[in-house]
Amino acid sequence: MIATVPAIPSIFPMPREHSREAAVTDRIHLDALNALDEAGFVAALDGIFEHTPWVAREAFASRPFATVTDLHAALTRAVEARPEAEKTAFIAAHPDLAGKAARAGDVAPASISEQAGLGLDRLSDAEYERFERLNGAYRARFGFPFVVCVRRQTRDAVLAAFETRLAHDRPQELATALREIGYITRLRLVERVEGPGVPNVAGRLSTHVLDTHRGGPAEGVRVELHEVGASGRALLKDTLTNADGRTDTPLLGGGPLRVGTYELVFHVGPYYAARGLDLPERPFLDAVPLRFGIAEPEGHYHVPLVVTPWSYATYRGS
Amino acid sequence: MIATVPAIPSIFPMPREHSREAAVTDRIHLDALNALDEAGFVAALDGIFEHTPWVAREAFASRPFATVTDLHAALTRAVEARPEAEKTAFIAAHPDLAGKAARAGDVAPASISEQAGLGLDRLSDAEYERFERLNGAYRARFGFPFVVCVRRQTRDAVLAAFETRLAHDRPQELATALREIGYITRLRLVERVEGPGVPNVAGRLSTHVLDTHRGGPAEGVRVELHEVGASGRALLKDTLTNADGRTDTPLLGGGPLRVGTYELVFHVGPYYAARGLDLPERPFLDAVPLRFGIAEPEGHYHVPLVVTPWSYATYRGS
Amino acid sequence: MIATVPAIPSIFPMPREHSREAAVTDRIHLDALNALDEAGFVAALDGIFEHTPWVAREAFASRPFATVTDLHAALTRAVEARPEAEKTAFIAAHPDLAGKAARAGDVAPASISEQAGLGLDRLSDAEYERFERLNGAYRARFGFPFVVCVRRQTRDAVLAAFETRLAHDRPQELATALREIGYITRLRLVERVEGPGVPNVAGRLSTHVLDTHRGGPAEGVRVELHEVGASGRALLKDTLTNADGRTDTPLLGGGPLRVGTYELVFHVGPYYAARGLDLPERPFLDAVPLRFGIAEPEGHYHVPLVVTPWSYATYRGS
Amino acid sequence: MIATVPAIPSIFPMPREHSREAAVTDRIHLDALNALDEAGFVAALDGIFEHTPWVAREAFASRPFATVTDLHAALTRAVEARPEAEKTAFIAAHPDLAGKAARAGDVAPASISEQAGLGLDRLSDAEYERFERLNGAYRARFGFPFVVCVRRQTRDAVLAAFETRLAHDRPQELATALREIGYITRLRLVERVEGPGVPNVAGRLSTHVLDTHRGGPAEGVRVELHEVGASGRALLKDTLTNADGRTDTPLLGGGPLRVGTYELVFHVGPYYAARGLDLPERPFLDAVPLRFGIAEPEGHYHVPLVVTPWSYATYRGS
Repeated sequence: MIATVPAIPSIFPMPREHSREAAVTDRIHLDALNALDEAGFVAALDGIFEHTPWVAREAFASRPFATVTDLHAALTRAVEARPEAEKTAFIAAHPDLAGKAARAGDVAPASISEQAGLGLDRLSDAEYERFERLNGAYRARFGFPFVVCVRRQTRDAVLAAFETRLAHDRPQELATALREIGYITRLRLVERVEGPGVPNVAGRLSTHVLDTHRGGPAEGVRVELHEVGASGRALLKDTLTNADGRTDTPLLGGGPLRVGTYELVFHVGPYYAARGLDLPERPFLDAVPLRFGIAEPEGHYHVPLVVTPWSYATYRGS
Repeated sequence: MIATVPAIPSIFPMPREHSREAAVTDRIHLDALNALDEAGFVAALDGIFEHTPWVAREAFASRPFATVTDLHAALTRAVEARPEAEKTAFIAAHPDLAGKAARAGDVAPASISEQAGLGLDRLSDAEYERFERLNGAYRARFGFPFVVCVRRQTRDAVLAAFETRLAHDRPQELATALREIGYITRLRLVERVEGPGVPNVAGRLSTHVLDTHRGGPAEGVRVELHEVGASGRALLKDTLTNADGRTDTPLLGGGPLRVGTYELVFHVGPYYAARGLDLPERPFLDAVPLRFGIAEPEGHYHVPLVVTPWSYATYRGS
Repeated sequence: MIATVPAIPSIFPMPREHSREAAVTDRIHLDALNALDEAGFVAALDGIFEHTPWVAREAFASRPFATVTDLHAALTRAVEARPEAEKTAFIAAHPDLAGKAARAGDVAPASISEQAGLGLDRLSDAEYERFERLNGAYRARFGFPFVVCVRRQTRDAVLAAFETRLAHDRPQELATALREIGYITRLRLVERVEGPGVPNVAGRLSTHVLDTHRGGPAEGVRVELHEVGASGRALLKDTLTNADGRTDTPLLGGGPLRVGTYELVFHVGPYYAARGLDLPERPFLDAVPLRFGIAEPEGHYHVPLVVTPWSYATYRGS
Repeated sequence: MIATVPAIPSIFPMPREHSREAAVTDRIHLDALNALDEAGFVAALDGIFEHTPWVAREAFASRPFATVTDLHAALTRAVEARPEAEKTAFIAAHPDLAGKAARAGDVAPASISEQAGLGLDRLSDAEYERFERLNGAYRARFGFPFVVCVRRQTRDAVLAAFETRLAHDRPQELATALREIGYITRLRLVERVEGPGVPNVAGRLSTHVLDTHRGGPAEGVRVELHEVGASGRALLKDTLTNADGRTDTPLLGGGPLRVGTYELVFHVGPYYAARGLDLPERPFLDAVPLRFGIAEPEGHYHVPLVVTPWSYATYRGS
């Protein structure tokens, strides 16, 4: 018998696709980019730094770039070298998160698709109001909109970040906002430009089920992955372990992991029942949940389960 | 930050008191019981075997009893010695579970309070109908009501037992029903008669939190115990570990444990945050759930947590 | 098959009795002690502080003592209140460890029996010379003999302490020597005086074998306890686990544990073979060694083994 | 401080090189072998089945071979198809293990180098006599010499196999001897013939140190691997973990693992001391031994250590 946790009607609809939601468009090679004139260069990077062609113009002087990482560094340096008033104006060019402009379609296309990835384009009225209220409080405090790299966050983490950052002083928050813009533009750049020295923007979540009752990998264990939020949970993956006790593809990967809380559920009850062990009708272990937080979007989280019918262990592995 | 699982509005209201719901009345000592005449003896045991004074009358011949266990054995032998038709009639004297008679108050007082302990006296209409339907199917199949020792079961387990037992053949089910009556009467007897050789009717659930990051018991960890059912969960206990990493009183005890699925949730995130470790804002481990089944109502379940900020293990201990 | 480690011919013969080697003589009650006159009081405590009746004489003024702990505190205060020269003279009254005087029988009887407990009275010539050399180096550096509470140390730990303490500066070492005298006299006092508030001088080593293959304690596992030294190992105990997976008596206890390195060896191979499991002829786990250090002579070391035929775990428990 | 186990003067000198001791000579490709005439074919396989050219001659009829595995199967079938008397004669053509002929140089070169790999060419007189005695008892019982694939065994396992096989009845032992010849010739064939479908003859031993105190792999932990025999132990490897907590090369590999008992020793004391943790001078864990048996020479043994200063766990992983 599988003791399933009841499906919780989430008032906070979770995104269907969790990882790489932004479509990958045609890329330009770094060599080609290095060879362009200023107008071509600025055009090629259009949309990476929202509404601010001067960023690319400034970076143009540092050509040629040996790596994509160098190119990104030159672009962010262009912003950081400016006086505070210009930095603020630069941040202010970004749309509100889940805001009116987004609803009305009046923002850069990249921002729209990124926010859609988090489900911010289909909020309930209550949620929309909560975001509006937080956006308002934030703007009132700092004079610019709340900017966050939504592709590195669950909605839960975005809301937690709102609270944390509202408590910042102005220099702290200015640095935080620019760091987030760094994450946003790094992701956009990696999708636009190919070539040597591409910065790592991908994390990975993997698992491994070891059956120490029989002394080998556990094959055929059903594994669910859920995102756990304050107002509900969303099933992200439902899969089976293979002959090596692993999943054929990583549980999460191919892009940044979203900061947030997750739960793996391993259905070891049916696995052991199928092996014909003499266990109680109500087994000690049936659906084993492992709940853990992800804090590093570009990190590798290996979360194994070492299990018998009467015990289990987990740890952050490597 | 404590990542709490959302409160699930249970459509299946859980009992407020989980363990010993039946009031303990005045007890009689086994020596006094042994000294009574037949009428006194039968009166003293009235209500233990429902509506069936002949059980006590028959057992009277085996006096004196050296232990309470011997007394209970003599009483159950009196039933088991009867031909099948009389056994069936004996079982048929029991009220339906959660049935009309219980709603109308027309059953033995002991049955009422026992069923109330499981919340069977305050079912929603939908639940009431489900029980009525199962009771009907069961009666149609076997010709007697479904009898189960509700004090050894969660509602979830009672419903699971309905399914299992509906698939029994008649001899199997007759044996099962009598075994359940054995459990019911053993509990009632222990509350009525004191003296030597009282059978064990109490199980125990305990825990222990070992912090292998610092090398000692974890003090001050908040521990919740939930009963997990198909339609929701109920908080049974919310407590803190003491200086030895244990709870001051067992998590469950003093009576039979209810067969069912449970979840312990250990709030190790706040514990480690309070110790000043350098951990991510979204810690790897925060609220650690251990989900397990209890199959032996009179057993001892020791379910420890051996934990660091990056790992944990559990097992059925002793 | 039990894969035993070969018996190592220890060049460093280990003591036969490990814990309470000093004979317990007749005790005096604290009340009786409080009632004695000065001469009687000093006589009653003779030999606790070696060759220094003035310690007891000084403490006499603080009578009556509410607890044995208070008495010991008054005695040590009497020493600590003295100027450095007198403290040094006091320490100098102690015999060399394993020294000529000890060989010749020219030391306080208590010191002789304590040193014998560690086997310091039957050193080989090479060992004797090593101790003589260390004693000489120590005396040359500090001007007083090396004092250590041998009943709280293995020989290995005594030799390690020699190295550590030779590197001390004079004030550090003076404090260390007096602290050791505190340990020595506390042990002697507890054996001489009974009454309220006896200081804790006993540690404990215990174990517990949990078999998570079958989900319960492992009964009948042979457990050996060895002391592991630089030059060999000594078997201290060879016992079996009982029905609760524990040993009937603590592995060590009843007095201070000796600082040192130990190894528990659990013979799980024969245990699982006896359970009829289908395991390789050369099992993955056979004799499982757990090696650990004891640093707190008065502490409780609980060192469990959580085991299957294919895995095990241990931790410092409580 | 590293608490090292004392060096045991082994009366049983261990081989210096543990894995691939036989020199790899020029190989012939399976295609070339398939194209040879009978005389060439037999010559090319000379020495694989000792002193018995008829084996290759018989197999020649089954050409061409699609895989090296097929070739080996044809060769062993040639032996198995013979009547018992011829099988016995075939086995009798093998030299005694560690016997007079080997000492005198009067055996096939392959046998000599294989036995040398186990150190059987440099036995002490006592050991030599023990082998002579066992060889004699075996010959007396079965009428042919004791044959074992020494490259898949430690000396300890060879001696254990002697005892086990002396208790066999004749058909059992005949089957066992032929199975061992299968292992011997499979290894020789793999070194002689290259091409598709080479049978797997290599096992692997690997480890991984996870530090769950800091939540990542443990880098720089010294790891020793010992072979543990009845009469002593031999250090096979002394290495360090890399940034991923693994060793740069497998601990054992590149050929069959030798059936036997092994011990990994992880020096976690110095590792944690270097990380500046506040631990006792005599740490709870210093040199952590994991002792385990290898039963499958062609298997993968992954033996990780999951460790904190106060706990550790291991299991047979994958």
